[in-house]
Amino acid sequence: MSSSFGTIFRVATFGESHGLGVGAVVDGCPPRISLSEADIQQQLDRRRPGQSDLTTPRQEYDEVTILSGVENGRTLGTPIALFVANKDQRTSDYKNLLPVPRPSHADYTYQMKYGVRATGGGGRASARETIGRVAAGAIAAKILKKTYNIEIVAWVSVVGSIEAPELYPGTINHKLVDRTAVRCPDMEAAEKMAEEIRRAKKELDSVGGIISCICRNVPPGLGEPVFDKMEAKLARAMLSIPATKGFEIGSGFAGTRMRGSEHNDPFVLKGDHLGTITNNSGGVQGGISNGEPIFFRVAFKPTSTIGKPQMTADFSGQEVVLEASGRHDPCVVPRAVPIVESMAALVIADLALRQKLNGKAFCRHCLTGGKEIV
Amino acid sequence: MSSSFGTIFRVATFGESHGLGVGAVVDGCPPRISLSEADIQQQLDRRRPGQSDLTTPRQEYDEVTILSGVENGRTLGTPIALFVANKDQRTSDYKNLLPVPRPSHADYTYQMKYGVRATGGGGRASARETIGRVAAGAIAAKILKKTYNIEIVAWVSVVGSIEAPELYPGTINHKLVDRTAVRCPDMEAAEKMAEEIRRAKKELDSVGGIISCICRNVPPGLGEPVFDKMEAKLARAMLSIPATKGFEIGSGFAGTRMRGSEHNDPFVLKGDHLGTITNNSGGVQGGISNGEPIFFRVAFKPTSTIGKPQMTADFSGQEVVLEASGRHDPCVVPRAVPIVESMAALVIADLALRQKLNGKAFCRHCLTGGKEIV
Amino acid sequence: MSSSFGTIFRVATFGESHGLGVGAVVDGCPPRISLSEADIQQQLDRRRPGQSDLTTPRQEYDEVTILSGVENGRTLGTPIALFVANKDQRTSDYKNLLPVPRPSHADYTYQMKYGVRATGGGGRASARETIGRVAAGAIAAKILKKTYNIEIVAWVSVVGSIEAPELYPGTINHKLVDRTAVRCPDMEAAEKMAEEIRRAKKELDSVGGIISCICRNVPPGLGEPVFDKMEAKLARAMLSIPATKGFEIGSGFAGTRMRGSEHNDPFVLKGDHLGTITNNSGGVQGGISNGEPIFFRVAFKPTSTIGKPQMTADFSGQEVVLEASGRHDPCVVPRAVPIVESMAALVIADLALRQKLNGKAFCRHCLTGGKEIV
Amino acid sequence: MSSSFGTIFRVATFGESHGLGVGAVVDGCPPRISLSEADIQQQLDRRRPGQSDLTTPRQEYDEVTILSGVENGRTLGTPIALFVANKDQRTSDYKNLLPVPRPSHADYTYQMKYGVRATGGGGRASARETIGRVAAGAIAAKILKKTYNIEIVAWVSVVGSIEAPELYPGTINHKLVDRTAVRCPDMEAAEKMAEEIRRAKKELDSVGGIISCICRNVPPGLGEPVFDKMEAKLARAMLSIPATKGFEIGSGFAGTRMRGSEHNDPFVLKGDHLGTITNNSGGVQGGISNGEPIFFRVAFKPTSTIGKPQMTADFSGQEVVLEASGRHDPCVVPRAVPIVESMAALVIADLALRQKLNGKAFCRHCLTGGKEIV
Repeated sequence: MSSSFGTIFRVATFGESHGLGVGAVVDGCPPRISLSEADIQQQLDRRRPGQSDLTTPRQEYDEVTILSGVENGRTLGTPIALFVANKDQRTSDYKNLLPVPRPSHADYTYQMKYGVRATGGGGRASARETIGRVAAGAIAAKILKKTYNIEIVAWVSVVGSIEAPELYPGTINHKLVDRTAVRCPDMEAAEKMAEEIRRAKKELDSVGGIISCICRNVPPGLGEPVFDKMEAKLARAMLSIPATKGFEIGSGFAGTRMRGSEHNDPFVLKGDHLGTITNNSGGVQGGISNGEPIFFRVAFKPTSTIGKPQMTADFSGQEVVLEASGRHDPCVVPRAVPIVESMAALVIADLALRQKLNGKAFCRHCLTGGKEIV
Repeated sequence: MSSSFGTIFRVATFGESHGLGVGAVVDGCPPRISLSEADIQQQLDRRRPGQSDLTTPRQEYDEVTILSGVENGRTLGTPIALFVANKDQRTSDYKNLLPVPRPSHADYTYQMKYGVRATGGGGRASARETIGRVAAGAIAAKILKKTYNIEIVAWVSVVGSIEAPELYPGTINHKLVDRTAVRCPDMEAAEKMAEEIRRAKKELDSVGGIISCICRNVPPGLGEPVFDKMEAKLARAMLSIPATKGFEIGSGFAGTRMRGSEHNDPFVLKGDHLGTITNNSGGVQGGISNGEPIFFRVAFKPTSTIGKPQMTADFSGQEVVLEASGRHDPCVVPRAVPIVESMAALVIADLALRQKLNGKAFCRHCLTGGKEIV
Repeated sequence: MSSSFGTIFRVATFGESHGLGVGAVVDGCPPRISLSEADIQQQLDRRRPGQSDLTTPRQEYDEVTILSGVENGRTLGTPIALFVANKDQRTSDYKNLLPVPRPSHADYTYQMKYGVRATGGGGRASARETIGRVAAGAIAAKILKKTYNIEIVAWVSVVGSIEAPELYPGTINHKLVDRTAVRCPDMEAAEKMAEEIRRAKKELDSVGGIISCICRNVPPGLGEPVFDKMEAKLARAMLSIPATKGFEIGSGFAGTRMRGSEHNDPFVLKGDHLGTITNNSGGVQGGISNGEPIFFRVAFKPTSTIGKPQMTADFSGQEVVLEASGRHDPCVVPRAVPIVESMAALVIADLALRQKLNGKAFCRHCLTGGKEIV
Repeated sequence: MSSSFGTIFRVATFGESHGLGVGAVVDGCPPRISLSEADIQQQLDRRRPGQSDLTTPRQEYDEVTILSGVENGRTLGTPIALFVANKDQRTSDYKNLLPVPRPSHADYTYQMKYGVRATGGGGRASARETIGRVAAGAIAAKILKKTYNIEIVAWVSVVGSIEAPELYPGTINHKLVDRTAVRCPDMEAAEKMAEEIRRAKKELDSVGGIISCICRNVPPGLGEPVFDKMEAKLARAMLSIPATKGFEIGSGFAGTRMRGSEHNDPFVLKGDHLGTITNNSGGVQGGISNGEPIFFRVAFKPTSTIGKPQMTADFSGQEVVLEASGRHDPCVVPRAVPIVESMAALVIADLALRQKLNGKAFCRHCLTGGKEIV
């Protein structure tokens, strides 16, 4: 059941990197939502390999088919099965089983866990697994946009040692992000980042980075107390993406150096509702959205598949030099931007549906001082 | 269902800060485990208020009672209900309902979510809620210690601007951690941290910090692919603790600046099994433990309840100056150490039980090159 | 996790028959519902032993305490913990461990499953376990009554060979049911049933029976397709009650003998909505409520604890004669009536909450021929 | 999430009757199990339409493809996606939306629930939905056979008023069941049943029936206390099959008429373990298997789609005469036999995996009187 995500808006993904294909089943999507393959394809296209010289040269078009749950362009309330055929299937064959576990890959751990592993590429540990997430996330994002006008925008804020200047995240949108292949909205930083990636690529090496994400217009009240806090669900979602090593929300690690009197976000009347002056909380208090933008950052390690020769050991413990010959991304963050957005959409859509169960959701009765309303 | 955690070793917590009490029900604990209240009490005592001048002066003894699931000192395989009575109950009364939502607290968001909130203290958003986690986590830790000799040790590595020197985490144990009230094993840093906390306290302010945690002797193979990766479960667990803002595993955010050739952990024969030379992965690859120590860090913001006057707004939007009069911790990290350990224990115990389902778990057949073994 | 029930309105029970007590935690109860111990106590009183000469003479008052989740008489949206202390605790002691597994009891199977079992009485397999269900079910029933005016009424329709005449179930209510100790609303049949039970009791034997249940005013649309059909959830709920052996809905087993042309329930206009002329479906079609009363029956075997000597074998396989000395019910059905109602309430409350997720629930747009309404 | 079933061995089905296809994803199948499409196809072939003159004349070959989770003929431990294309797709079109809700069908209730419904056939309420269950169930059955030698055999024991003589169920196997198209192992009864079905068919009517099922070699200890009792899980599984109205285990409804002294199953030494002399319990005690055969029966109503004209109302409440023109089964039980077996296999496989979590499962230490063994 580890390939399932969500409580109400529930996604189950399947598929190995070199099998017949990959996909997802979404169980819990509300009925009567207008939906077509085109809604999903646009995010898959942002994720696919071969978009620029910064990514792997492999060309995979990743065309999605909706197998069920949609008729006459609208959802039926029944499970939506999504499928993307693999173009690069291999005849499965033990000859493809790599004798050397790639350092910092999942070859060794899958073998230890299951006593067997997929012969070609990474199997379920491959980045192709994220196709199902992006497809399902596009549906979630559409619902959030239509129902609450929620906008989720992620971008590359760090590549290696190159950091984009702090931007007021209120101005960033998909168009600005997609202006550059590296997906950093600051043109100057983007150019340096691209340079950094090309340099790593030339050296047959790889480089890490950070993706920032903002979710605007999230109504207050989303997120469940205790274990299903908004930030807990987001953290799990982000750390489930391959190659991630860290997550922080609002002030994050830097906030640990602040005093409470600086860090607290004072309330203030904004139009007809309460807002906060600062947003060190990153849009959540006690695990529940407060109406301010949700802001978080995700750390990605440098790609573990590199062309550069590496000293390591094979399964029998013998020292060997490993030289990867496959085509790989020298930096995952440009293509991971839609994955981060998709996982955020899955989290928020699930929590938005759960909040429906509390009755008069998103009401503004707080302004009446908490009087009984039912 | 947001107060439940875990798939197999499943914990449900309950209780408000000023109601009759708090507790937890553990469903899925294996039978025939020796267990008594004393096993649980020792971790609760590390969490309780009033331990030193660095914490709140409130004295709460938090004595646990096992209500079910244990007989003649061993578990029955049935749900274990745990209860800790609140000493500081208040007659519930609307007069206790604060008219001003405390900045960066959950008062506002609970009210927006539910249209009602607990009148005294933080209700479920209070730190008292973590008592159930610590009680359940103590059971998980006992099972892990007995079955796999797993040791989970957390400590305070940063308070405000004071950072403990990088220690080889292999040497840290509970005894070293508990030598100082601040729970930093480095005596010099501990002294400076205590000073920092006392300074904040004197200024009626608060300060944040970072807790580091290491899990030793975790066998390879724990963690489930895709959404239930070890690091994803840990991240969710940690970000569900009140006042947390960040999580990183292994190289974390710093690792984003490294090249793949530096970051990759090469394999090497260690005795009769494969290990890695470095541990930038933090003990996990592809979401599954690789046998190396699991190492992660958690960021805590400065306590939001402060005595210092704060300009903010009440529920009606009127500007007010808020001065908290309650007794509070000027820094949460010393008392959060057992909470971090408990949540880690809950995650690992659950994943260890799940791995039993794969049959010959933890075998070393990988060294035979992946031959079929069943 | 086997002691949990429900998806949204989720109940977890705990407690052994001879430990400190039994209880339940309800996670998922909506906020702002008025609730007190008295709402729960009345159903517990209908379940308790010692009500009449037809039940066990043991007197257990089973007084419930709400430990959390309710303040100032209304629910907070947080987990509601409920506790009933056991009056009849025994010092746990291996001397209480019965050397002979009682025939058709759970002694043998618990021992085989867990390698350990509760020493006194039935542990979790005791009927005391149902206290938690009845307590939680009373909350569910209150919500259903208040929100949808749903009425759930169960009664004894068969005891041994005595069958109540088919009554129009529309006329049966709690008051009529509770007129007699046997809980059969037909006075003549009730008298014969009581006689049958007294006869079995006198012979140190026991007798089985059938409980019928009707749920009125259930709106159409409750029940989820495929695996969470209304009847599937009810069947699981009922077969989870100790001593049950069968479940049937609507026409049930008798319906297998009918032709489709007789069995089908034709639609007809009833006021402003569609209803059906007959109700062989028992209020569900395709697993979803259709607005007609939900009607089902549950078979209970004769109590397995009997005073009459029984030839059987001990754990070592030696033949022995077993004579139970405890006080027991000669027939479980009179006291099982509130248990059946409670389980039905838990099922329907959970499905009613789930239906909120589909948007404009319970609308009557079907009369418009299925036009898009969103 | 209502299209998912099981806790550990978890199946999610998808697909409408007239969309691109139907299928299932199995998440939680152990690794290293030998598996091919042929293992699954044989049960699908027993379920498919057009097998004889007793079923619908529609010819659907229902060829299964394994999309993921299997490589080189063995399972990887990752999700197994299964797909069966629909041969009988229709261009989805509002013209196919029936204006009259078919009596005792799900047309009305789906419309009320979702405000939309599939235009062709029954959508998710169609019997085609069971293809995913049968495919997944075949995998479960294979594991159970290989690991525990568990055999699950279902057969038709009643059609309309024709009842097969009580057979000693120990002698029934798949071969005997499949000797006749009606799937009753008693040749004489089978002939009469076939006659009954042909008569109903000729009269453009339909007829109901009962399927009996036995599960042999189930080890003791399977089934979880309280809500996940073996019989509760089986009841839910069976009542989730379209057209079912009842479930009984062991003595079932007839057992309610017995005295406890007759009904109790005395223990006796059978070889080296305890067994019972009679099996009124149907192989379960307290919800847990006792090592005796599990025996249950499932009631199926007469097919609701009939050719005979029916007086009913359309969605607007207007009286109409409905004459179904489609090709349908006059009796569902012959084709439902593999569905019942599949659902039983899913239940038992899930519970068998869960029992692994209790450590030394299926040991016979009970014979030692319950001494501590760990």
